Amino acid sequence: MKLYVVGLGPGEQSQMTVKALEAIKNSDTIVGYGVYVDLIKDIVEGKEIITTPMKKEVDRCHMAVKAAISGKNVSMVSSGDAGIYGMAGLVIEVLSEYENHNVEVEVIPGITAASSASSVLGAPLTHDFAVISLSDLLTPWEHIEKRLSLASEAGFVICLYNPSSKKRADYLNKACEIVMKNLPKDTPCGFVKNIAREGQESVILTLEELKDAKVDMFTTVVIGNRTTKIVDGKLVTPRGYNI
Amino acid sequence: MKLYVVGLGPGEQSQMTVKALEAIKNSDTIVGYGVYVDLIKDIVEGKEIITTPMKKEVDRCHMAVKAAISGKNVSMVSSGDAGIYGMAGLVIEVLSEYENHNVEVEVIPGITAASSASSVLGAPLTHDFAVISLSDLLTPWEHIEKRLSLASEAGFVICLYNPSSKKRADYLNKACEIVMKNLPKDTPCGFVKNIAREGQESVILTLEELKDAKVDMFTTVVIGNRTTKIVDGKLVTPRGYNI
Repeated sequence: MKLYVVGLGPGEQSQMTVKALEAIKNSDTIVGYGVYVDLIKDIVEGKEIITTPMKKEVDRCHMAVKAAISGKNVSMVSSGDAGIYGMAGLVIEVLSEYENHNVEVEVIPGITAASSASSVLGAPLTHDFAVISLSDLLTPWEHIEKRLSLASEAGFVICLYNPSSKKRADYLNKACEIVMKNLPKDTPCGFVKNIAREGQESVILTLEELKDAKVDMFTTVVIGNRTTKIVDGKLVTPRGYNI
Repeated sequence: MKLYVVGLGPGEQSQMTVKALEAIKNSDTIVGYGVYVDLIKDIVEGKEIITTPMKKEVDRCHMAVKAAISGKNVSMVSSGDAGIYGMAGLVIEVLSEYENHNVEVEVIPGITAASSASSVLGAPLTHDFAVISLSDLLTPWEHIEKRLSLASEAGFVICLYNPSSKKRADYLNKACEIVMKNLPKDTPCGFVKNIAREGQESVILTLEELKDAKVDMFTTVVIGNRTTKIVDGKLVTPRGYNI
């Protein structure tokens, strides 16, 4: 049977790929965190829906794998790209624990927040970039600090996922302090809240202003490099063409 | 008028988003490098098509902008995500040279090669990653070397775009030598040629083997970090959950 791991993109169905829509259509069972399943509720009517709370990712994978082994086509859905900080790796690992199955995993990519946030802000990722999650739930904070420091030293544009949460209210502030050792305070930056969802809001500001900005877990942040500039109110990292 | 900058994704139309398909449908004029326009030739019949050769990117942007100013809805298309090493930034810059126009630019993201290659290989981008182009056409090679070195030191999974061309046949070899200073020779890596196109081919191999691999400009390369492993023949960077 097929076990699709489907990236839903930023939120609105029009930003899903045709392949993602078809995988969901071909599935008997949809597995996902409730908020994600809500994004597609009108196209999953009549299907078996398995939702689990957050932080129950491993359980969710076992449920999806068992449903597929029992003879169902299953779509495990998550927002953005299922392969980028998503569930695709965990599904592959969990499935490998089972023997003698006829389940084939297919990862169907979606638009990740780096792409969708950048498209709202302008074109900041025209050049080499690094993607860093500020969540230290599964990564020691010292590793995150090191990555922020080396990425800014290397001249990458930096895209931050999970920049804040209730427990980590000051993490974006700390992150900006670190990159400011390598970048001017007036480096152009931006963030987008609720991309392609109700209440979408985008802000372009300096690195110094970003340090004190109020963001939440539904925000994606972009920190420019030394060439990033603001053109007609949009954040642009030039690729280097003479125009 | 609307000037859409549309990412077509890796190649097959089913990996385009609904929004990208609609933008093309709503356009009077399609502008792009011939190879990209060919990917969508069946859905652009009857529209005005403006193609230019490679390396004429600035001319192409002026043509697109002029068509939009003259009152047409225009889609400027490129493969992958138009905002990631794509034309979105250049379109915004070129448009800013014109005054008194009523053209609104909308960047419509597509599935970038980091996402599509990873979905074919497994799930190598479950953790922080860096995207680096090995093309030194617009970036000095010393900058690329520095980024390779610092990205591998920081523990990023590294995704390489444009790993080779006729003039740069040994660049992937040089890049592997650099990251090998920070990573074991047996680090799991992978590459995908012609993603979602005729002749798609994917290979999982060690960093040492990658050093001598034959790749071309239609290849995307992924270099794992110290936690990346091979699970059921797939390249997986675990997110850190206990399973």
